[in-house]
Amino acid sequence: MAVIKLWYSPGACSLASQILLKETGVDYEAAMVDIGHGTPEEFRTINPKLRIPVLSIDGQVITESPAILTAISQFSPEKHLMGKTNLEIVRTYEWLNWLSGTLHAQAFGGFIRPHRFSDDPSTHELIRAKSLKTIRECYDKIDQDLSSVHAVGDSFTAVDAYLYVFYRWGEHHGMGMKKYPKYTNLVVELVKRQSVQEALDMEGVLYYVPR
Amino acid sequence: MAVIKLWYSPGACSLASQILLKETGVDYEAAMVDIGHGTPEEFRTINPKLRIPVLSIDGQVITESPAILTAISQFSPEKHLMGKTNLEIVRTYEWLNWLSGTLHAQAFGGFIRPHRFSDDPSTHELIRAKSLKTIRECYDKIDQDLSSVHAVGDSFTAVDAYLYVFYRWGEHHGMGMKKYPKYTNLVVELVKRQSVQEALDMEGVLYYVPR
Ligand SMILES: N[C@@H](CCC(=O)N[C@@H](CS)C(=O)NCC(=O)O)C(=O)O
Ligand SMILES: N[C@@H](CCC(=O)N[C@@H](CS)C(=O)NCC(=O)O)C(=O)O
Repeated sequence: MAVIKLWYSPGACSLASQILLKETGVDYEAAMVDIGHGTPEEFRTINPKLRIPVLSIDGQVITESPAILTAISQFSPEKHLMGKTNLEIVRTYEWLNWLSGTLHAQAFGGFIRPHRFSDDPSTHELIRAKSLKTIRECYDKIDQDLSSVHAVGDSFTAVDAYLYVFYRWGEHHGMGMKKYPKYTNLVVELVKRQSVQEALDMEGVLYYVPR
Repeated sequence: MAVIKLWYSPGACSLASQILLKETGVDYEAAMVDIGHGTPEEFRTINPKLRIPVLSIDGQVITESPAILTAISQFSPEKHLMGKTNLEIVRTYEWLNWLSGTLHAQAFGGFIRPHRFSDDPSTHELIRAKSLKTIRECYDKIDQDLSSVHAVGDSFTAVDAYLYVFYRWGEHHGMGMKKYPKYTNLVVELVKRQSVQEALDMEGVLYYVPR
């Protein structure tokens, strides 16, 4: 049995990894990190990038959500958490990379942490405003691109869990996510899963849709 | 035989996909897109995100470099272009996601296209300056993290090809890449590959290291 540990912060993007771990049913330790004022300096010894999630498997430290989700999916290959067919696997990485690079790093990065893009505080409101526009464009695109309650194929994949992270952030910041009907449907279906309920209850965070 | 087409721009991040296609030896059509003044509006019918690379396989349109590289690797599974073992595959996605999200979208995005982060041109020099700092931090980290002439395991993967893209951009922008010895070694080894030479010659772009 591998020794598995996930570093997370309640409601952060690590929630997708938490959900996927619950989905596989493996035993793991969950270690909470408070990133309210940025990731604490001490965390540098675990992840020099100073970000969560971090997953360790028998001492191998893995960073970056799409890589962590890949590693978790390998615990239960029969569940096809990264997609069933070759094309589904490609679609999964297409979603994950766009969500991680464009919606998270570029758009939410500028909105929540504008200091990553300019050292001059007087520019931060402009960066936040532009980033908010990009976030809304991403939400529009998500709602357009979805064709069922699953982002890839006809069953649950890591993408559904990752999409939930950004839906929750939108609601948290008052962006009125109910105006995205397909995205909302996906989330409404998703929170019926035991893995999702366990992950959210364990992190102690809101569902934002009826369960 | 699948009908394969790659939309690329010379020296852009699509170079990694071009190299990987040459590596597999499949037949494909390469279609050049001029992104000098941003991606042309007409391209929206092919990729609504207005970005390259785009790969189509029998009419299935795939975007996002890590997904495209995954799709190309599926043409030649015996070459293990995304890594050999489960852990190598995880490391490959870890590198790809960080390079795509942090170095490309966040750092080079702000450096080359600051208008993505603020509508006010007077802020653009500040955004470029901060992004340049982030680029240098990423190059430092790459050089620190490499332990051989291959980024993952002991053989060529998609990560090596992707790393070359950002090495070339650094040289192109006069960032003095020779000061990164391990990164330079990787590139010096890489340009000995026939696939790499074919891809660069076909795009008509500089090697930046002796071949
Ligand atoms: N590319 C990383 C990004 C991770 C990331 O930015 N995580 C955020 C939490 S959602 C974080 O650690 N923020 C703390 C900070 O920036 O100091 C991934 O996809 O996992
Ligand atoms: N996340 C995408 C980003 C692709 C991207 O930004 N490509 C650049 C060229 S290196 C582009 O198309 N730029 C044109 C534009 O921004 O208008 C990927 O990893 O493939």
